[in-house]
Amino acid sequence: MELKKTPPAPPAVLHQGEFWFTELHAPGTGITFRVKQVLYFARTPFQEIALVETSDMGRALFLDGTVQLTERDEFIYHEMMVHVPLCIHPRPRRVLIVGGGDGGCVREALRHPEVEEVTLVEIDGEVVDCCRKHLPLTASRLDDPRVRVLIEDGVKFMKRSRGAFDVIIVDSTDPVGMAGPLTREGFFRAARRALTPQGLYAAQSQGPIFDGKEIGRIARTARKAFRHVSHFLAPAPTYPGGLWSFILAARGARNPAALRPRPLPRGEKTRYYSAGVHRAAFVLPPFVRDFIQ
Amino acid sequence: MELKKTPPAPPAVLHQGEFWFTELHAPGTGITFRVKQVLYFARTPFQEIALVETSDMGRALFLDGTVQLTERDEFIYHEMMVHVPLCIHPRPRRVLIVGGGDGGCVREALRHPEVEEVTLVEIDGEVVDCCRKHLPLTASRLDDPRVRVLIEDGVKFMKRSRGAFDVIIVDSTDPVGMAGPLTREGFFRAARRALTPQGLYAAQSQGPIFDGKEIGRIARTARKAFRHVSHFLAPAPTYPGGLWSFILAARGARNPAALRPRPLPRGEKTRYYSAGVHRAAFVLPPFVRDFIQ
Repeated sequence: MELKKTPPAPPAVLHQGEFWFTELHAPGTGITFRVKQVLYFARTPFQEIALVETSDMGRALFLDGTVQLTERDEFIYHEMMVHVPLCIHPRPRRVLIVGGGDGGCVREALRHPEVEEVTLVEIDGEVVDCCRKHLPLTASRLDDPRVRVLIEDGVKFMKRSRGAFDVIIVDSTDPVGMAGPLTREGFFRAARRALTPQGLYAAQSQGPIFDGKEIGRIARTARKAFRHVSHFLAPAPTYPGGLWSFILAARGARNPAALRPRPLPRGEKTRYYSAGVHRAAFVLPPFVRDFIQ
Repeated sequence: MELKKTPPAPPAVLHQGEFWFTELHAPGTGITFRVKQVLYFARTPFQEIALVETSDMGRALFLDGTVQLTERDEFIYHEMMVHVPLCIHPRPRRVLIVGGGDGGCVREALRHPEVEEVTLVEIDGEVVDCCRKHLPLTASRLDDPRVRVLIEDGVKFMKRSRGAFDVIIVDSTDPVGMAGPLTREGFFRAARRALTPQGLYAAQSQGPIFDGKEIGRIARTARKAFRHVSHFLAPAPTYPGGLWSFILAARGARNPAALRPRPLPRGEKTRYYSAGVHRAAFVLPPFVRDFIQ
């Protein structure tokens, strides 16, 4: 096999003076980035954090070797994760974000003038510190007076919260290891109790190309706690399979997927989200519907 | 930087007894596959063809080192490319496919009982031969009596066709080199002339994550030949950026994006396409709209 147009790209090794990092999405399939500079690297009690400057994607945050975001494409994930629930909640005053220490969800939530307080509960303080220092694109709004940053276990925080939040957003790592409890029935029940009566719950729920079964498991588990659990999709260029799913659930009796989104205030320009995109995102292709039945 | 969960993945080299192949989507960003077996490799007068068995994605066809399809995700691309135009054409009897030597578009077109003849015009006969032999998932319907396979230059074929096709689908490689002429004004004008009065034209038009400017160029060029040029999107897990765009144009005065899709016949199950997905695919996020203005 002749080799063309393909400079060397080994995973996290130096090759001909270049440093390439590969994340595997399946045993023999992955995404690879040339890293220009490692800005931060630490092993915390929770995970391994790496914040790097890539060749093409801007800065990128890896946790345990898994891409969490790149500056180039994070707008899609963060806009959808936040504006889908916030644009259909009648009055989203108090917002809780679990995980999301990079600040991307906080930044988007603050674009809604109805929001009076955003509580960020991140288990690993070093993620927040590192992003404040090296990822201003997402973290710059963490110092807004409306934001409260708590470094603690989101599961414990949720269990002691009652009727406190209009919108809860769970922006977690993959549901294995530390983040495993965030997709268990007990957590969903605690989240439901932590919502106000009209409250909405949104969370990332993995991608259908490589993790369809996991989407199904999360859906079935969430349905044990919430009356209505809907699913929406968005592209995720640097996540496995390039397509990502999210769940949207309501404490109350109304199906949140049927609610009409309110427009964002004038002047708040989004790059991926729009009212039309909101509605289209809930149209699931048959192969995704099959997973969640 | 400590290395975890990341076995070696150099591009098209043997490493610890494993053969990995990387396609770069930008100078320092790419997708990497472990190749279990090279089933076919040839350098033809037109390109380098490699058909390989991958670790996770089934068989994969590479042309000049660029992924054309994998068995695992080709259903999305082929269903959208074909069913979007065919489900809105009132009576798609004669279908022309330019490129697409793997047979995936032919397979989908034959699922429409209205289709009487599918003409496949592929410039490189070795692609067709190799896919007939090694890619039955897409190529198995090339021997259907309704199919006519012509090995010739699609540009020349188009220039001598007049009012002959109800639907034209251009399933080409990236618009550089050999495929460059397929996105030039002269080709679009020839395609318009090759359509019947109610005829529709669909073509892949690159991805907005890495090639937004190219989407814009293709859109502006197509609008010189067609009155209505619409755009739709679909996930493309193994294409650059994981999100792909397509153009849909009409010879006539009606805007094809506004037409209601007809359902596929009962029993014809699709995995990605549905009438709802069809409509949702035309909702473009603001950052894509910006490219095509």
